Amino acid sequence: MELHAVPDLPEIRPGDDIATLVADRATLEPGDVLTVASTIVSKAEGRTANLEDYPVSGRAKEIASRIEDVAGEEKDPRFAQAVLEESTELLIDCPFLLTETRFGHICVNAGIDRSNVPDHDILLLPRKPAESAERIREGLAARGHEDVAVIVTDTCGRPFRHGQRGVALGWAGMPASRDWRGEVDRDGHELGVTVQSVVDELSSAANLVTGEAADGTPAVVVRDWEFGNLEGSDELFRDVEDDLVRQALREWRFES
Amino acid sequence: MELHAVPDLPEIRPGDDIATLVADRATLEPGDVLTVASTIVSKAEGRTANLEDYPVSGRAKEIASRIEDVAGEEKDPRFAQAVLEESTELLIDCPFLLTETRFGHICVNAGIDRSNVPDHDILLLPRKPAESAERIREGLAARGHEDVAVIVTDTCGRPFRHGQRGVALGWAGMPASRDWRGEVDRDGHELGVTVQSVVDELSSAANLVTGEAADGTPAVVVRDWEFGNLEGSDELFRDVEDDLVRQALREWRFES
Repeated sequence: MELHAVPDLPEIRPGDDIATLVADRATLEPGDVLTVASTIVSKAEGRTANLEDYPVSGRAKEIASRIEDVAGEEKDPRFAQAVLEESTELLIDCPFLLTETRFGHICVNAGIDRSNVPDHDILLLPRKPAESAERIREGLAARGHEDVAVIVTDTCGRPFRHGQRGVALGWAGMPASRDWRGEVDRDGHELGVTVQSVVDELSSAANLVTGEAADGTPAVVVRDWEFGNLEGSDELFRDVEDDLVRQALREWRFES
Repeated sequence: MELHAVPDLPEIRPGDDIATLVADRATLEPGDVLTVASTIVSKAEGRTANLEDYPVSGRAKEIASRIEDVAGEEKDPRFAQAVLEESTELLIDCPFLLTETRFGHICVNAGIDRSNVPDHDILLLPRKPAESAERIREGLAARGHEDVAVIVTDTCGRPFRHGQRGVALGWAGMPASRDWRGEVDRDGHELGVTVQSVVDELSSAANLVTGEAADGTPAVVVRDWEFGNLEGSDELFRDVEDDLVRQALREWRFES
């Protein structure tokens, strides 16, 4: 398996066609996986906003009053309002905001970014990352690059382990996971591991060559990796019924 | 970045020297990262056991009586006893066992494997995976392969997202994470993402070429990846004070 950063992508602006920008700069082969950081997808889709666009609800005001931002100051209630508008459920409301976004991803601040935004205050996640991935995939196919899977990625933290790692937000041209059920080990015992989240693993791998800083390369081509002859599934985001941690968080309130 | 599975590793037996077995089969260069699945580390370290070795405590009996194993039968209380003996904290005790292992990793059943064990009932995780990684690294250096970092990996599930992904249990020759604090984006704004868990991302990448089944290749060489000129940290496992999910789980009990 090989990973190559797509070189020399320009700063992305609203309306830019990511498929064309990548196809002009990268060698692509059938079977490749292209990962694209959600930041540039959001920029191309015009998902920037200003805090003055968010009239503050009573709930946002109340939430913001209890939490501090990175600088130790009370959180801007307009930012809390933006987070609420991007979310379907607030899992943790203090000392930070952990929410489920409208497309099912659970992350801090609904993934809203305050860096990486040249002309606005904030950058929202793509509205429907799976559709974004599909559009990029179709754009590549239209330029003769057939059979390239596309993953829209982000980085986020997690319980139990420090640090952030790359994760998938949306994908097209491949399943999210592969299922080893029924497969056996060398001794013929059925495997304990069943479902492998390959889109997340590909996103983590790509994040190793992406870089976050000024020389960041937000698109990566993965070559010579095969999904293999296994069943696939597109279920990635857990419902609360499948997730004991979500159930526990519903009953819990932070006390400092 | 390139990943190559180490070919033709034999079935590993107690006392086998993984460094020698890998060095005989793989090309290694300074700066490479070698990932090794914890299953073969455990086998080499003789971490197999039989259920009859675990006299059942009252607590194990009580725990086992409330949970069902994969086949829908009551869990073997000797297995519950083995899980307790490998753990320092039980985070979820029903409908499955989520524990913190003695070296700080949080996973189901303390990572005890019931497949992949030819002559015994169960395979325990390595006792101290960081020391295991260091031993393999020293073994490689002794064979002339200087400056190869080693990660002992496992796969496990997580809250919020379906599926398993590769994670690091222990590492040597590199920090667990790199810290982008103080770095700026193209526009000079400080980055939102700060700490990147590179050992987990490398473990996930390796798991894409490892495979879980009969043709599994439990060791992978990562080449042409650079940690870069950033600060590193070896903190990977969160303490309960840093982890709101752990705090929430302490106050929560499963009710079916």
